[in-house]
Amino acid sequence: MSKPSIPKGTRDFGPRAMARRQWIFSTIRNVFVKHGFLPIETPSFENLQTLTGKYGEEGDKLIFSILNNGDYLSKADAAALEAKDSKKLTPTISKKALRYDLTVPFARFVVMNRNSLTFPFKRYQIQHVWRGDRPGKGRYQEFTQCDADIIGSTSSLCELDLVQVFSESLTDLGVPGFTILLNDRRVLAAVAFAMGVPEDRLTDWTVAVDKYDKVGVEGVKMELEKRGFGEGVVSGIETLVEINSHENSLDILSKLSELIAGNEKGESGLQELELLLSRAKDDGIVAPNIKFDAMLARGLDYYTGAIFEVKVADSPVGSICGGGRYDNLTGIFGLEGMSGVGISFGADRIEDVLEHFNKFPDNIDKTTDVLITQMDSKNCSQELMLVSQIRSSGFSVELYPDASKLKKQVKYANDKNIPFVVLIGEDERKSGMVTLKNMSDGTQMTILPDAVVNHI
Amino acid sequence: MSKPSIPKGTRDFGPRAMARRQWIFSTIRNVFVKHGFLPIETPSFENLQTLTGKYGEEGDKLIFSILNNGDYLSKADAAALEAKDSKKLTPTISKKALRYDLTVPFARFVVMNRNSLTFPFKRYQIQHVWRGDRPGKGRYQEFTQCDADIIGSTSSLCELDLVQVFSESLTDLGVPGFTILLNDRRVLAAVAFAMGVPEDRLTDWTVAVDKYDKVGVEGVKMELEKRGFGEGVVSGIETLVEINSHENSLDILSKLSELIAGNEKGESGLQELELLLSRAKDDGIVAPNIKFDAMLARGLDYYTGAIFEVKVADSPVGSICGGGRYDNLTGIFGLEGMSGVGISFGADRIEDVLEHFNKFPDNIDKTTDVLITQMDSKNCSQELMLVSQIRSSGFSVELYPDASKLKKQVKYANDKNIPFVVLIGEDERKSGMVTLKNMSDGTQMTILPDAVVNHI
Repeated sequence: MSKPSIPKGTRDFGPRAMARRQWIFSTIRNVFVKHGFLPIETPSFENLQTLTGKYGEEGDKLIFSILNNGDYLSKADAAALEAKDSKKLTPTISKKALRYDLTVPFARFVVMNRNSLTFPFKRYQIQHVWRGDRPGKGRYQEFTQCDADIIGSTSSLCELDLVQVFSESLTDLGVPGFTILLNDRRVLAAVAFAMGVPEDRLTDWTVAVDKYDKVGVEGVKMELEKRGFGEGVVSGIETLVEINSHENSLDILSKLSELIAGNEKGESGLQELELLLSRAKDDGIVAPNIKFDAMLARGLDYYTGAIFEVKVADSPVGSICGGGRYDNLTGIFGLEGMSGVGISFGADRIEDVLEHFNKFPDNIDKTTDVLITQMDSKNCSQELMLVSQIRSSGFSVELYPDASKLKKQVKYANDKNIPFVVLIGEDERKSGMVTLKNMSDGTQMTILPDAVVNHI
Repeated sequence: MSKPSIPKGTRDFGPRAMARRQWIFSTIRNVFVKHGFLPIETPSFENLQTLTGKYGEEGDKLIFSILNNGDYLSKADAAALEAKDSKKLTPTISKKALRYDLTVPFARFVVMNRNSLTFPFKRYQIQHVWRGDRPGKGRYQEFTQCDADIIGSTSSLCELDLVQVFSESLTDLGVPGFTILLNDRRVLAAVAFAMGVPEDRLTDWTVAVDKYDKVGVEGVKMELEKRGFGEGVVSGIETLVEINSHENSLDILSKLSELIAGNEKGESGLQELELLLSRAKDDGIVAPNIKFDAMLARGLDYYTGAIFEVKVADSPVGSICGGGRYDNLTGIFGLEGMSGVGISFGADRIEDVLEHFNKFPDNIDKTTDVLITQMDSKNCSQELMLVSQIRSSGFSVELYPDASKLKKQVKYANDKNIPFVVLIGEDERKSGMVTLKNMSDGTQMTILPDAVVNHI
């Protein structure tokens, strides 16, 4: 067959990358656990209708559908087949689709398990998600999200809890120069209304503002024009950008407060933001680098309150974390009035950032502790006994499987970064001793087999 | 929308199930690491042609294909569409498919990364696999395999290494009454030839023998008849079953040795089995419950040497582990002469077995250590300070987010199995003290906030 390859936008992870990823996941998981989040996992694929219609039109296009097994064409929509209408055909030849994020499956989980859960329910979930995005720097078709959500409470202490989780995790990971950006959908809506955006065009306006980071103020203005907004709305963006340019978050909040005066929802959003910002700086909390950002919009439809994003200065990738409050995500599955707030760490982008800044700790890819070499694979009882003995003391031990040249066996230890090698040659067999070689400095000592564990 | 559900054959895992699963995975992973296996991960989906044709005709039917995104029908095979030929259409509307096992992706990985790997390469891999099997007891459409393989050595010490991994892992997991069954494809082939099976019908014969466990001797005979084998081959099964009925593995081996006398490959297979069995019993190795089974065949095509299976007496599921040696798995991807041997733990079946026998340890679903209650979510600096203080000592701490009735907050701690609750009421605020409640015996003490960490 032709040279093997893997699908675009996916990656193999070898031992070195795995050691790094396992360290990232366990670091984040430890913080989740220290905040009382409990783990759940959901299936990799959901029923197609659980996912479609939840991520906006653009999102829907990126969902991976799974073809029904067997003779799927026998049940396909004949008209769609005839018309070659892919979009219409899909639900008749595909019943399920790969998870697009962890939030919608979580909402579905909560609805299905509501009678056995303790609310407010704090859950974490570390799993793959899949999106048919065009692959690029920091953008993969398969990547891992690390999510923490609190559902069943409207208290802004939940937002504070999650800001602390951001701060502690990213500090423990050693991510340099990160900033937690903060806004609120209610404030954003009030700003939009103050500028003359009609209520039914809010999502449209939000989608345009969300592009600010990539296209700048002129880009957003063009986007708004393209979407048919009037002069007032278009030029209003400049006012917003100007307000947002203040260094101090509280200054921005007070300017916005003037702009949206009288909008009740917007004002209560501002008050919560103020409380959150002041608490994040006081109250003995690890002071996170947190900043209000009036231009932060977030792409997803379901956010209704606070929204978060984490960026890293001079980093090769976009945001590394996101999140926000959703007042009614479970409503789409038939359970109303269950407000929640959640955050998501993009583990793959964090990996890229740490790689870029060369910030991985040195000692995370520890491997085997001891290699035992051998001369005769048919007759190696002594070696096998020693392996068992050292391993039962808790060490990681390997017996080289082939009676290859000693040089090759020692090279194996060297390549695999194994710090100690035990040699049992002819002399050692006769004397009942073994030679222990320290690979870091090349020194050797001849000792009793029982003594090996004391020297490693 | 209608009541939410999940696809058949998949499962949600709540906090309790997750605690058990995390414990199973970490127990197996620890043994892998102690034997010098290094982690890798491969993408959840592979190019379709990487998977098709590797698992036999039955296996191929169970592979889940992923529909191409966008207007996939525009590139669909017109003739296949016209003829409504699902099988022929699939490769023209689907480029990728979900992983069916971890072995074929591993072989693909080795071929693609052969220049950067150290051989013999010992890798472990713990990931989901997906099969469109009819769901049933212990049979899921999404399940997790824990694989360990050694590739690049023909030494039977590799088989011994893996038998030890089986034995140590299953012992650490507390799986009751497990037996490691052992056979060799070379021996099986020699037996088949001795009975008159033509060389080109060997796979056919093996597939029939593989069903013995489910259908018994009469069932295998019927299966062989159905497949057109002659009287000698059909009745030969009875001889094999008779030989296999001996208690002692070495007795069976010696009987077989007579049966296949002169078949060189078969004899060398027998010798290796004998060596493996004797080593697994001596040489200071944790004596595993290992048994030769002349009827063990294994379904997969690619095995060429030793084959393994682990069964649990009186268990509700079939085999919980499997494995074997493959001489040329990388050959299908263009790299010849790279022999390997591997084993796979079915984590989900192990979970089912431990559940069935009620063998999970008690202490694995530890949750939050301390809950701090609150009276006023707008004014809780003292509580927030205490949370940070206790958490920075390494404990898992939660502040209840809402100023709910104290009874409700304490019930939350009780439901979540949190052992300690800190109460800061009006009296405590005035005195600067806090009340620490021990949830297991209901006792309370009033202490300084700084003293909380000393009492939990």
